Amino acid sequence: MKKIINDPGKVVDEMLDGFVYAHEGKVERLEGTGVIYRTFRDEGKVALISGGGSGHEPSHAGFVGEGMLSAAVCGEVFTSPTPNQIFEAIKKADQGAGVFMIVKNYTGDVMNFDMAQELAEMEDIQVEKIVVDDDIAVEDSTYTAGKRGVAGTVLVHKILGAAAAEGQTLQEIKALAERLVPNVKTIGVAISPATVPEVGKPGFVLQEDEMEYGVGIHGEPGYRREKIKSSKAIAEELVTRLKNAFNWKEGDRFALLVNGLGATPLMEQYIFTKDVHALLDREGLTVPFRKVGNLMTSIDLAGLSLTLVKLEDEAWLKFLKRPVSVPAWV
Amino acid sequence: MKKIINDPGKVVDEMLDGFVYAHEGKVERLEGTGVIYRTFRDEGKVALISGGGSGHEPSHAGFVGEGMLSAAVCGEVFTSPTPNQIFEAIKKADQGAGVFMIVKNYTGDVMNFDMAQELAEMEDIQVEKIVVDDDIAVEDSTYTAGKRGVAGTVLVHKILGAAAAEGQTLQEIKALAERLVPNVKTIGVAISPATVPEVGKPGFVLQEDEMEYGVGIHGEPGYRREKIKSSKAIAEELVTRLKNAFNWKEGDRFALLVNGLGATPLMEQYIFTKDVHALLDREGLTVPFRKVGNLMTSIDLAGLSLTLVKLEDEAWLKFLKRPVSVPAWV
Repeated sequence: MKKIINDPGKVVDEMLDGFVYAHEGKVERLEGTGVIYRTFRDEGKVALISGGGSGHEPSHAGFVGEGMLSAAVCGEVFTSPTPNQIFEAIKKADQGAGVFMIVKNYTGDVMNFDMAQELAEMEDIQVEKIVVDDDIAVEDSTYTAGKRGVAGTVLVHKILGAAAAEGQTLQEIKALAERLVPNVKTIGVAISPATVPEVGKPGFVLQEDEMEYGVGIHGEPGYRREKIKSSKAIAEELVTRLKNAFNWKEGDRFALLVNGLGATPLMEQYIFTKDVHALLDREGLTVPFRKVGNLMTSIDLAGLSLTLVKLEDEAWLKFLKRPVSVPAWV
Repeated sequence: MKKIINDPGKVVDEMLDGFVYAHEGKVERLEGTGVIYRTFRDEGKVALISGGGSGHEPSHAGFVGEGMLSAAVCGEVFTSPTPNQIFEAIKKADQGAGVFMIVKNYTGDVMNFDMAQELAEMEDIQVEKIVVDDDIAVEDSTYTAGKRGVAGTVLVHKILGAAAAEGQTLQEIKALAERLVPNVKTIGVAISPATVPEVGKPGFVLQEDEMEYGVGIHGEPGYRREKIKSSKAIAEELVTRLKNAFNWKEGDRFALLVNGLGATPLMEQYIFTKDVHALLDREGLTVPFRKVGNLMTSIDLAGLSLTLVKLEDEAWLKFLKRPVSVPAWV
C-alpha cells in the first residue's frame, strides 16, 4: 500500500483536523467527534445533516456551509458513524426549525441515523429523513438492502440545501425529498480498486485489461466484468441503463453529474462527458445543469459514475444553480 | 495502460469539447484550436492568458473566467502550444488594454509564448509576460533551464487576475508579477508515476516501497529517491526545503497551497495539510490563506506538492481571497 499517511488507524481523525485548518472560519469540528459543522447559522430555518463512512471525500464534509449542509458526521473509513455522533450533529445543527437527515442507503447508516433520530426526538428536536438509493446497478448488495446510495446524494444535498436556505419547513423539505429521490439515478464503472488504509490491500482485484460495471463506492460487486472498453462504449452502456431506468422520452429535462471516483483524472472525466453529451443529444434530452468532478469518491478507486436527475420541477434546477459557500461546490 | 479514453491521439481535443459542454455559458473554445476563452468581457481592462501542455487539469482552462484568466491555450499532453495558437488566444482575449501572459518555465513554452508576443506586437497589441519558476526542487531539468514552473502558477493566476479585474494597467501588473513570483515557492513528492496516453506506459518507474522528492509535473527527475515515509516525515522534508529557500523568520506571513498531483485522494492531502500546519506553527509563521486540492496535476501521478507564497504585500492576500467565477476555484 502506497499512501501519504501516518497511522492507518488515525486517518479520519487527522484528515478532519487538516480539513478544519484548510477551511478555518467556515467550518469547525465538534471536539472529540467526527462531526464537522458550519460556523454560519441560519436561525429559524431547517438544518440539513448528512454523513456516513469516510473515504468518499469531499463527501460529505466538503458540502458543509452556507446553502448546503449544516453538519456532516464522518465515520471511520467505510464505517457508519455511531448514533451518538449523529445525535451530537443534530443538536449542534438545529436552528430551531428541526433537522433533516440525508442518509445513503447502507444498512448500518440507516440504522444509526434512525437511532439518532429517536435520541433527538426524546429531547424534543424534530427530525425527518430521506434515504437516498440512486445506484441502479444492482438490487441488494454487500451492505445494502435495496439499491445503494452514491453520487446522486450530493445533488440531493444541493437541492434540499437551497430549499432549506429559502425557508422551507421540515415537512415541505420532506415532501420535496420524497418527490426528488426517485428521480435521481446513478450508475458507475471501476477500472481499478480502492485500498482502505487499515486493510492495506485493494478491496477487490481487476486484471490489467479488465473493468467492472456497477461497482459500489465501497468496492461492492457490480453487475458485469469485461475487457476495458473505450469511453464511448462505456458511455453507451451507462446511458442505456439509465434510459431503461428512467424510461425517458424526447424533450425530457435532466441535470447531469459526471463524478470521478478518486484516482481518475479530470481529463478522462471530460472525455467521458463529451461522449455522454453526444448520446443525450441523440436521445433528444435537454440538460440545463451539468457538473463534472470528484464529488463522491471511493478513496483511490479509478473509475467514474454518471448521475442524471429528471427535472420534474423547474424549482429543482433553480435550487441546483443557487450559489453556495462550501469547500467543494463551485 | 488503463484509461477511460477513446483515441490516445485525440485526448486533448475530446477533453476540451467535454470541458466546454460542462461549463457552457461561461467558457467557449476557439474553433479548431486548443484555446479556451471566457464569455465574460471586461472591456478596457488588461486580459490575462496562460497555458502550456495539457495533462495538468484543471490547469489552466479551469481558471478561465471572471476574475482570473481571460483565456488558456491548451497544447497536446505535456507539449507546448504553438505560437500561432497563443497568438489566437491573445487576439481573442484582448479587451483593449493589452494582454499579460503567465508562462511556466519550460523551454518550449517560453519560446512559443515569446514568438506569439512578437506576432501580437506586429498587430499593435501590447503584450507583457512573466515566467513562473516556483519549483525549488532542482536547478535545470529535462525541459527547463533554471527552475520549473509548477503549482504556484495557479496562485499567480489568482493574484494577477484580481489585479486585472480591479483595473491595474499592463505595466502595473507586470511590476506586481515581478515582485510576486520570487515569493512563490513549491516543492513536491511523487509516490507513483503518470502515464501519458500516447506513450501508453508510465514515464518513470518507482518500486512498490519507493517515493521520489522533487519530481516535476511531467515526471522530470527529482532530487532524491528513498523508501516511502510517513506524511509527517514528508512534510518535515518539504517544509525544511522551503524554509531554506525563503530564509523565513518568526511572524512572517504566508499563503499555503497543498496541491494533489492527480491520483492522490483528498484524504491524504488533508492529512498532509495537518502535518504541514504543525510545522508552520512550530516555525511561528502566520498563514492567513490556505487552499487544498488538485489544482495543477500531472495526469494520474500520485503525489502532492506544497506551495508557499510570502505575503510581502497585504494586497496579495486580498487578491487571493477576492471571489471569482471560474470552473475550478471555489
